[in-house]
Amino acid sequence: MITEDQVRDGLKEVLVPAILRSIEEMNLIREIAISEGTVKVTLASTGLVTGAQDWIKGKVTETIGKLDKESAVTVEFADIPPKELNEVGKVIAVMSGKGGVGKSLVSSLIAIALRRMGNRVGILDADITGPSIPRMFGLTDRPSGNESGILPVLSGSGIEVMSINLLLPSEDEAVIWRGPLIGKAITQFWEEVVWGKLDYLIVDLPPGTADAPLTVLQSLPVTGVVIVMTPQDLTRMIVKKAVKLATQMEKTLLGVVENMSYLYVPEIDKKIEIFGKSRGAELASEIGAPFLGQLPIDPELAKLCDEGKVEEYQAEIIANLGTELAKAAPLK
Amino acid sequence: MITEDQVRDGLKEVLVPAILRSIEEMNLIREIAISEGTVKVTLASTGLVTGAQDWIKGKVTETIGKLDKESAVTVEFADIPPKELNEVGKVIAVMSGKGGVGKSLVSSLIAIALRRMGNRVGILDADITGPSIPRMFGLTDRPSGNESGILPVLSGSGIEVMSINLLLPSEDEAVIWRGPLIGKAITQFWEEVVWGKLDYLIVDLPPGTADAPLTVLQSLPVTGVVIVMTPQDLTRMIVKKAVKLATQMEKTLLGVVENMSYLYVPEIDKKIEIFGKSRGAELASEIGAPFLGQLPIDPELAKLCDEGKVEEYQAEIIANLGTELAKAAPLK
Repeated sequence: MITEDQVRDGLKEVLVPAILRSIEEMNLIREIAISEGTVKVTLASTGLVTGAQDWIKGKVTETIGKLDKESAVTVEFADIPPKELNEVGKVIAVMSGKGGVGKSLVSSLIAIALRRMGNRVGILDADITGPSIPRMFGLTDRPSGNESGILPVLSGSGIEVMSINLLLPSEDEAVIWRGPLIGKAITQFWEEVVWGKLDYLIVDLPPGTADAPLTVLQSLPVTGVVIVMTPQDLTRMIVKKAVKLATQMEKTLLGVVENMSYLYVPEIDKKIEIFGKSRGAELASEIGAPFLGQLPIDPELAKLCDEGKVEEYQAEIIANLGTELAKAAPLK
Repeated sequence: MITEDQVRDGLKEVLVPAILRSIEEMNLIREIAISEGTVKVTLASTGLVTGAQDWIKGKVTETIGKLDKESAVTVEFADIPPKELNEVGKVIAVMSGKGGVGKSLVSSLIAIALRRMGNRVGILDADITGPSIPRMFGLTDRPSGNESGILPVLSGSGIEVMSINLLLPSEDEAVIWRGPLIGKAITQFWEEVVWGKLDYLIVDLPPGTADAPLTVLQSLPVTGVVIVMTPQDLTRMIVKKAVKLATQMEKTLLGVVENMSYLYVPEIDKKIEIFGKSRGAELASEIGAPFLGQLPIDPELAKLCDEGKVEEYQAEIIANLGTELAKAAPLK
């Protein structure tokens, strides 16, 4: 008789149509009951449109049929809240207080780095009024879902993404909401999105210390916070406000990333510190957190972000970011 | 007998101690009653601590006494809400939707430009969780006031400034407030601050299209909006969200300023377009607003902002900004 493990193993090949991750990775397999002559599989229907349910049912029946030619296969669906399906290892909030220092860029590069290391990674874009993530990854598909949940959209390298901009009729549409609605949207991105099994969920926060950061730090099980800054002293002053918020909420400071540290001008083989001398290591030591690295201003990277190809960026800094972060927030 | 105009003219020399603008410019002179043998002046006591009231009373008596040696001078104070004292010509909101594109810088440079042209100018820093204005102007004095109003702080070149950072115990203190409180702080900066007579009040908005921008556009008599962007296409997408907000609120778009357009590298006498080619003129024509100008990335300017000396910046662009803006929002 076929075993549960064999069935489960086989089902790793069955993909959820809209997102192209397996039903196993999306944690949709709720029960496998094997008795003489029958294999019964119960799947969560959460986030699946009827067509997707039918398609998965067919694939599951076919896959198990190949493994066990004797048994009859039954597939049933159950409506399970996403909260019960989601198994997220580490939730990492990327914040800075100050706008435009590169939170979205750092969130993306961290996600890409951890993904390249073989992790299952998601990005929750908590910047409801200024979401940048979909554009940087070139994502335009609308998320698919049903009344009990919504599926994230998968990036080219396999990162799950959820952002308000994926839900708007056009990407330049304004979300003119006051704080309470913004907080609600963010908690929905946590509670009503089928993230499935993830090693890391990166939460890209908007600037400020108001509703969005507060909601994330209060309502999500945040493992720790990555602080993003630029060398300007003015930035540092405002970044320290974000550090105070994180500290007051008793969150671990996982580290500091300095962005726009310098511009390399190949013609003169010189690094120009456009925004003044680097202050990242200094801030990191001041707040007692590791200094995770420096990012230069790189016109090539700006171009890739504009073109939706951030995942093609190959600089060494990405691997370093991943290694350092994995040290700061180890999975086990 | 002395005339009212003569008295009023004389009182232009009497300064309000904490702010060093005259009682006439602060619009504190409420009534001048002249009858045989007496001159009675009624002043608003709004925002004045007792010591300041006494000092002003003395100065007013002395000044009128010099002009009219025969009459007895009486000075009375009345408690008038700031809203009745404030006479602001044009309220200009600086917004972008996106963080870190230089809203505060553009707000400052516009204010400096208009001030250099001889206007009476104020800046209302509506960025409650990430206020940059006081640092850029090197302002550390706490605003003075009483229960009926608060006085702004005056910059070196005579610009009135109000910012939450002037009220915090230290500049890196976090303001951890949800939206409604942030909206309230902004309306207080409008209704409870004694701005007096101003030609222009520049309102520096935070990023996003949530509480702060909404409150400003709904509750303040905004003449028009200046849009700040950078050349990155990603920025443009988010800036367009802010434009949609302004348009929905039926506000005039006074113009577009592009910041970080290029970096000039003197060693190779070349302008490097770090964030891609300029898109300011294009956006301006798309939204039907004048293109007010381009600002380069200037390490010298970044340094001046860090040091609180933004008013020392002398680039030609400042004068242009002032001229263009005065055209877009003429005083008469």
